[in-house]
Amino acid sequence: MKYCNQCGAPVTHRVPDGDNRPRYVCDSCDTIHYQNPRIIAGCLPFHEDQVLLCKRSIAPRQGCWTLPAGFLEFGETTAQGALRETEEEANANAEIIGLYTLFSLPHISQIYMFYRAQLIDLDFYPGQETLETKLFHESEVPWQELAFPVITETLKFYFNDLPEEDYPIRNEDIIINRKRDPMK
Amino acid sequence: MKYCNQCGAPVTHRVPDGDNRPRYVCDSCDTIHYQNPRIIAGCLPFHEDQVLLCKRSIAPRQGCWTLPAGFLEFGETTAQGALRETEEEANANAEIIGLYTLFSLPHISQIYMFYRAQLIDLDFYPGQETLETKLFHESEVPWQELAFPVITETLKFYFNDLPEEDYPIRNEDIIINRKRDPMK
Repeated sequence: MKYCNQCGAPVTHRVPDGDNRPRYVCDSCDTIHYQNPRIIAGCLPFHEDQVLLCKRSIAPRQGCWTLPAGFLEFGETTAQGALRETEEEANANAEIIGLYTLFSLPHISQIYMFYRAQLIDLDFYPGQETLETKLFHESEVPWQELAFPVITETLKFYFNDLPEEDYPIRNEDIIINRKRDPMK
Repeated sequence: MKYCNQCGAPVTHRVPDGDNRPRYVCDSCDTIHYQNPRIIAGCLPFHEDQVLLCKRSIAPRQGCWTLPAGFLEFGETTAQGALRETEEEANANAEIIGLYTLFSLPHISQIYMFYRAQLIDLDFYPGQETLETKLFHESEVPWQELAFPVITETLKFYFNDLPEEDYPIRNEDIIINRKRDPMK
């Protein structure tokens, strides 16, 4: 952020009075520009003992497999956002069963949420951001070609829970230290 | 938003090419400014069968009772944000037990999350945004003076679950239609 979105003046990056961390501050109109983590909402769409994955047509991780998910929009509930992304990325008709996984990724200030969602029919097909949509049994999941750690974790939880048909909500943190060891 | 925070030029509000909803767009540097819901993280701090509430010293709902909660910051996990707010608003030392309630409030594009948190000691005292901090048994809760519906809902769930000591995670939507009936 370089300019104030309220008045157009250049902003400075400093700790405002009474605060305890640096913010982008406009010294012209006194607006403090807070930055907040973003939510990515998605579904784990399933049919019997199979899950629906989408092969990404876009960066990042183009060509890798993912669960349908994307940034929550203004005015949406988290479940509405999850279903919208499922429709946009896989043209899939699904019904939310319940919240399943919730991940904090503090290194990129993102919060991921996945809902278990039962497919209403099998008429899914790739959306604009998807090359291929396909149902996978556990033994067929391309574990080495999954797009993100949150996808791997959610699928691991799911296939672990599937035999007992008990799906407790998991709240996990994915901590990645961005500092690299200079000796390696 | 009136100006682009990247180049300082005025923004327009329109549907970008390939998108399906209006965004603030900079026609000078082609930046699209997405707006995303914000997360409020908080704790339900408890000691035996009592819960810790904070009387708000600031707007909105000044003088009403709340659970300690606030906007999640960049670089935080949701549990870290919940504990930070508990320390800031109540100077309370607490330990996260687990996620408890998660609410979507689409009319204000906010997502609330509360964690059950056990008080480590009773040395809490009001922070800057708090007039008073106090433990309440169920019969003592000032139900008519609670600050927000998410507080009322979380406390109702809690005192309902307390006898069985089973605390399933609740994911709820709070839908408030902002359009008022002009006849009322």
